[in-house]
Amino acid sequence: MATAAAAPTELARTSSLASRVLKAIPGSDRSAALTAVFEHLQAAKDQILEANRKDLEAAEEQAKAGKLSLSLIKRLDLWKPGKWEDMVQGILDVRDLEDPVGKITLATKLDQNLDLYRLTSPIGVLLVIFEARPEVIANITALALKSGNAVILKGGKESTHSFAAIANVISTALSTTSIPPGSVQLVLSREDVKALLDQDQYIDLVIPRGGNELVRYIKDHTKIPVMGHADGLCTIYVHADADDAKAVKVVLDAKTDYPAACNAVETLLVHQSISSTILPKIAATLLAAGVSLRCDTTSKTALEASSLPPSSKAIIQDATAADYDTEFLELTLAVKVVSSVEEAVEHINIHGSGHTDTIIAEDKEVAEKFMAGVDSAGVFWNASTRFADGFRYGFGTEVGISTNKIHARGPVGLEGLMIYKYQLRGNGQGAGEYGSGKKPFLHQKIEY
Amino acid sequence: MATAAAAPTELARTSSLASRVLKAIPGSDRSAALTAVFEHLQAAKDQILEANRKDLEAAEEQAKAGKLSLSLIKRLDLWKPGKWEDMVQGILDVRDLEDPVGKITLATKLDQNLDLYRLTSPIGVLLVIFEARPEVIANITALALKSGNAVILKGGKESTHSFAAIANVISTALSTTSIPPGSVQLVLSREDVKALLDQDQYIDLVIPRGGNELVRYIKDHTKIPVMGHADGLCTIYVHADADDAKAVKVVLDAKTDYPAACNAVETLLVHQSISSTILPKIAATLLAAGVSLRCDTTSKTALEASSLPPSSKAIIQDATAADYDTEFLELTLAVKVVSSVEEAVEHINIHGSGHTDTIIAEDKEVAEKFMAGVDSAGVFWNASTRFADGFRYGFGTEVGISTNKIHARGPVGLEGLMIYKYQLRGNGQGAGEYGSGKKPFLHQKIEY
Repeated sequence: MATAAAAPTELARTSSLASRVLKAIPGSDRSAALTAVFEHLQAAKDQILEANRKDLEAAEEQAKAGKLSLSLIKRLDLWKPGKWEDMVQGILDVRDLEDPVGKITLATKLDQNLDLYRLTSPIGVLLVIFEARPEVIANITALALKSGNAVILKGGKESTHSFAAIANVISTALSTTSIPPGSVQLVLSREDVKALLDQDQYIDLVIPRGGNELVRYIKDHTKIPVMGHADGLCTIYVHADADDAKAVKVVLDAKTDYPAACNAVETLLVHQSISSTILPKIAATLLAAGVSLRCDTTSKTALEASSLPPSSKAIIQDATAADYDTEFLELTLAVKVVSSVEEAVEHINIHGSGHTDTIIAEDKEVAEKFMAGVDSAGVFWNASTRFADGFRYGFGTEVGISTNKIHARGPVGLEGLMIYKYQLRGNGQGAGEYGSGKKPFLHQKIEY
Repeated sequence: MATAAAAPTELARTSSLASRVLKAIPGSDRSAALTAVFEHLQAAKDQILEANRKDLEAAEEQAKAGKLSLSLIKRLDLWKPGKWEDMVQGILDVRDLEDPVGKITLATKLDQNLDLYRLTSPIGVLLVIFEARPEVIANITALALKSGNAVILKGGKESTHSFAAIANVISTALSTTSIPPGSVQLVLSREDVKALLDQDQYIDLVIPRGGNELVRYIKDHTKIPVMGHADGLCTIYVHADADDAKAVKVVLDAKTDYPAACNAVETLLVHQSISSTILPKIAATLLAAGVSLRCDTTSKTALEASSLPPSSKAIIQDATAADYDTEFLELTLAVKVVSSVEEAVEHINIHGSGHTDTIIAEDKEVAEKFMAGVDSAGVFWNASTRFADGFRYGFGTEVGISTNKIHARGPVGLEGLMIYKYQLRGNGQGAGEYGSGKKPFLHQKIEY
């Protein structure tokens, strides 16, 4: 028992020690390590795919017994054409991003020979907990090393063989570089995660990548800061003056492009003045795409009075109050009529999850009011909520999407894995020399 | 009982609603509100000082009974010459800082008519818990309103009358402005704080300003992110090649300028090669200033063999292991000899609190190694740890000093009360139009 509890502590301590070395390793060495990881993975491709086959076979057994979904098997599969190549190319892509470490973000001359600098620095030790997809381990390793952070990885149990094989190769690769061996560590058992969540002394940030339940469990069981999002309840509000083609196109994309994603739309709000004009057009398109609509009384009445065919009208459902607080993650959409942009903003601030929300409108003033009033990581005007994504934003990659109110919000790239430190470069000054009646501070901006 | 629990929930909810209005209020209105607060406080000066007299009288009673320290009474006293003027002038100083809200920090053209902007935005609701000093309420109110955040304030019970009087005047002042009334709220009972710490649904950040015990209590009793520091265990390392005058001056300032401050030095590490040269000079100066030295065997032996007078040698104490983990907050300093800069870095990373640490050295390479290796909010070269302060750094003011590893680190000014949001301004685009084989993203930097 004592050993079971001690092991994760030791692992966390090792990570913490490694992180201190890693912090001071130059960017060129961190990039070289990623090249080594890439090369070793390429060389071990067959062996890793064999390990992945074992996971797949076990998963298929489970699926036959009805214990696993087919979509999970799809996520497990590294044999799928292009998947391996994407995984290893991703490491090189991250390697080639700008080094996020040691960037000056503030420089002030406090006095002659007393210069203050603020430089970006790695956070320290990350604990990343994710689910089935085995390629995530390569992706996270790349992000962690590029940003100078040590990382402890825990993946879903369905990918155990794949993870162990990839982690082994990564360890071997890193042993040929200047990166300390404890920088990337893998944890396989769920019990270990529980114990790791207590290691706030050594672990600086937990990043859960997974469903609502996983994220909530982690938030409830740790004092370590958690970065991520439990829910992605995104809303689109269609204003009175909306362009109907834009409304139809954006809502359709946001609902059907990838319904299981956190940035898919779950609630549609429409201004009352367009409930019998634009709403029926949106509804027709969504119904044709197989979307179930759960409508409040006003929107249902409007759709029933519209020129939609009877077969369409027949499948329109009544919304319950809970539907406006539900992340469906499938082809279902809650619909509600509101009387103003203010009411839409209020609805979103109460029922939304602070992820991403869109207004479809032509009037700039109304759009600005919406974007200022909605308190979400992403506030969009005439664009699909599905754009909320690190790659689409141009960050190259992302560690996840955060709905936190501090540190990092929205899609989080390398920047979100950084903090900063202050360097003060002096000449023997004491603080007691400055102040009223004594030397004044210059507080001049240093150009950098 | 139910009322006692419900009240803080209601208060937190009111703050949250107010914060959403406040977020969208222009900077000019927030500044005007600070002018109103200033004017109302000036007009109510006599009445507030009378309330303060009641607190002072009660505190003196307590002090006579040995239940309160005299230094606490000093901190309570608003009658002290210049204190009132500093308090109200501080409001105008904060008002005149640059508006931190709505600053663009990233702008990218994803495609024609699809522009992404990242803008600074207020965090939301702050809970600030502080101890006796009544002027802090004015200072925090100014910082919160300037940064567009709603704030719930809880001060020490010794200042109850002063707080209530100041809070009343602030409420009246805000009622003449466009700031929603729930933006600044005061809590008087300790029980309310306990209940507020549960309101993670409504409160976004807790900022404790006070001693170690207060901070630890808060960290242990809330799921809301906490920004601050429990300990300020700062260290100075004097390297082999240090300039002796700089070493003596910086160590003296760091230890004696204000020993009760979190940025005062608590541990002195010296390189072994200077234990019989520079160390005795530092020791002589510190002893003359009334500092008790707690030395490891090597440093004690060196000092005993030095030319220090016998009376000085007689008062040198033996350090215990615990001394190197102690924030003395008084004229006591732990001293230890190390054999290299690496050993100094390791000592600091294990025993320090990540607040501020200094190296005294002439060799730039050694200094860079120290500043890269020490994992603290502030890493200083030839400068006193006492410079770690928002005013000295040029931030105008500070909400506190953070030893957190995420969000904000070191002295935290207005910037630390901000997060950001993404605005995407489109023309009806769906994400499904982009990707391999479809439209590419431009990802061009927009100049701003």
